[in-house]
Amino acid sequence: MTQTADKLEQIHIGKKGAAPIAAPGWTGKPADRVKLVDCDVHHNFHDPHQLLPYLPKFYQEHLLDQGLHLPGAGYANTPFRRTRPDIKDPALQERDFNFSLEFTQKELLDRWNIDFALLTGPPVFLAVAGLPDPDWAAALVTAFNDWTIEHWLDKDPRVVNAILVAPNDPALAVKEIHRLAHRKDTAAVMMPMQTPDLFGKRRYHPIWEACAEHDLPVVSHIGGGSPGSTLTPVGFPSYYMENRMTRPSVASAQAASLIVEGVFEKFPNFKVALIEVQQMWAVPLMWHMDTDWKAIGDQTPWLKRPPSEYFREHIRIGSQPMHEPPRTEQVYQMLEMLHADETLIFCTDFPHFDWNDPVTVLPKLDERMHRRIFAENALDMLRITDDMIEAVVA
Amino acid sequence: MTQTADKLEQIHIGKKGAAPIAAPGWTGKPADRVKLVDCDVHHNFHDPHQLLPYLPKFYQEHLLDQGLHLPGAGYANTPFRRTRPDIKDPALQERDFNFSLEFTQKELLDRWNIDFALLTGPPVFLAVAGLPDPDWAAALVTAFNDWTIEHWLDKDPRVVNAILVAPNDPALAVKEIHRLAHRKDTAAVMMPMQTPDLFGKRRYHPIWEACAEHDLPVVSHIGGGSPGSTLTPVGFPSYYMENRMTRPSVASAQAASLIVEGVFEKFPNFKVALIEVQQMWAVPLMWHMDTDWKAIGDQTPWLKRPPSEYFREHIRIGSQPMHEPPRTEQVYQMLEMLHADETLIFCTDFPHFDWNDPVTVLPKLDERMHRRIFAENALDMLRITDDMIEAVVA
Repeated sequence: MTQTADKLEQIHIGKKGAAPIAAPGWTGKPADRVKLVDCDVHHNFHDPHQLLPYLPKFYQEHLLDQGLHLPGAGYANTPFRRTRPDIKDPALQERDFNFSLEFTQKELLDRWNIDFALLTGPPVFLAVAGLPDPDWAAALVTAFNDWTIEHWLDKDPRVVNAILVAPNDPALAVKEIHRLAHRKDTAAVMMPMQTPDLFGKRRYHPIWEACAEHDLPVVSHIGGGSPGSTLTPVGFPSYYMENRMTRPSVASAQAASLIVEGVFEKFPNFKVALIEVQQMWAVPLMWHMDTDWKAIGDQTPWLKRPPSEYFREHIRIGSQPMHEPPRTEQVYQMLEMLHADETLIFCTDFPHFDWNDPVTVLPKLDERMHRRIFAENALDMLRITDDMIEAVVA
Repeated sequence: MTQTADKLEQIHIGKKGAAPIAAPGWTGKPADRVKLVDCDVHHNFHDPHQLLPYLPKFYQEHLLDQGLHLPGAGYANTPFRRTRPDIKDPALQERDFNFSLEFTQKELLDRWNIDFALLTGPPVFLAVAGLPDPDWAAALVTAFNDWTIEHWLDKDPRVVNAILVAPNDPALAVKEIHRLAHRKDTAAVMMPMQTPDLFGKRRYHPIWEACAEHDLPVVSHIGGGSPGSTLTPVGFPSYYMENRMTRPSVASAQAASLIVEGVFEKFPNFKVALIEVQQMWAVPLMWHMDTDWKAIGDQTPWLKRPPSEYFREHIRIGSQPMHEPPRTEQVYQMLEMLHADETLIFCTDFPHFDWNDPVTVLPKLDERMHRRIFAENALDMLRITDDMIEAVVA
């Protein structure tokens, strides 16, 4: 056990489930029942062939003959061999860690006292969003959802799902939502963020309508098909570091599109969370849209309120990767600008190299802000029922 | 005269050139000599045929037969009939204002005591960046530069030029820089910001090299060829308001590209200003690149320093459109985060509807910050010689 892990053992009073986290630095009193909801926990298969039992015969043969044939996902979301030394498994050659439930329980849920973990799948797999064959994309996400049910959801009540849908044929995404919406552990719908077209466009409205019908939010993680690196308005960047810097522009474009196209006027109970895209982009977006709305709002008369009000009511932002400015207080200034008590939801991005743990990420929050970010904002958004909470915190 | 204009007459002690601005709200003492440099003043022709005398015969015929045939520039940068009522000219039918030198002198330079005004051309014309014929693009920018010399630069020493180049064939852009670099009133090079490829890519390095050789910064204004609206990583947005929200992602991508590709290691005296793209995007970009550089900087070993240091030394940001947050102090928090004393240069964007005047835009700066933003940062960047200053402030 490394020194870090050793220290963490000591600072946890409880070892399981909802035991209070009393780590140094948590200045706020956590919420009474649900204290910690993690909205970005990556699960994964080791080999695509694990999906075979969940595919119809036709697509089993397709997988055996063609492989996943996902479009290039660009740079790996996390470098394969670059992770946290404290949980490194020396037996693994290709990657430093695996994504199994047991590993996730040991290294995340138990160690950090996570009450609920929202599964967000393998980022590389989100490239299904760019598959040219919409039926193959739909078959793959259905197989992945069924694999997730059997190997994750049925085994731990703390684990809830953002069911994966592919945007390629919206009608098939709607079908998948209707197929799994009845399940209690369906807490959200995962839509890859890098779609062929903007979220506000009318082709996607049937997906949002199905979500609204089942009171399910969309949780959208960065990722999707991309030839080599993420397109910017001025071309494809060369390097991984640049590629990471494009994430705010994806999130900002999707948020502006949803708001300006009037999606939240059309579906008043619909919420969208944008995950692993940094946070601060939302501040100038809210400020500038409100300013513009005063000057040119007559061009979009279906917007009844300042755009920032739609944002604060309907859009949520993942807390990871949290900024690390030279002066720590600037993070807290940013949280105020962001209305983080309404908009920010805690995410670890476990088990990626740039993950954030719940203790050190934002150590100086007051009690209310602490509760909002680490539990309540997520509970207000996700479809998590009282009896699911009972099962976990009892 | 409107009430606003009337008031402005009263608050100006001097009426010409470098007379001190003693408007209410200017809490800082302006710089001693050059007090006010405006880095974004749009000039324009009324009719493309005005360029005919400056084109070779071959391209005169081209213009007469084909028109400018600029690619769609997307939404107009400023709505044609939506401008400031205080300077509206009722004689003009198509637009509310014109772009002549006389108009600019009367309504901007004299009225607001601008010491130096950097000409930035007509935003729609920046669509030359997307012209398929690189020779036509080069002929057009040469004609425009020569028209500017005759009708603007030779008539007022306060007016300096960002000579326009087209990125379509970098060798031709280099040629244009060498052709005009000897002129005193050449203070910068204007490169449209929406280029076919990212600024850091090697195809553009000869342009940056020519700028560095002549100690000219690039001033890059939002604009360029775009089919309908500005591309985002996830498609083309539908509405003008969304389109305006894409600007930070263009600027952020160009800045990251210049830094990560090592352009500033290659050309250590080279500076780039990014104009009319908001400001706050630069804060998370600097923060996040520095964090990433610690983790994955080994992938770009040619970067010797934290990326934010390259930014603060080499990249400048236009002050317009300045954010208008709900709580005014948040603008000043942002200026701190931005290192605005190094990075921010004052821009009016005259005469567009969303322009900022120098008095009300940032009323609560301390003396040093005031000097840096309104004069010194620009003077440190632009090629403006002492005798040019003498001619203006004497």
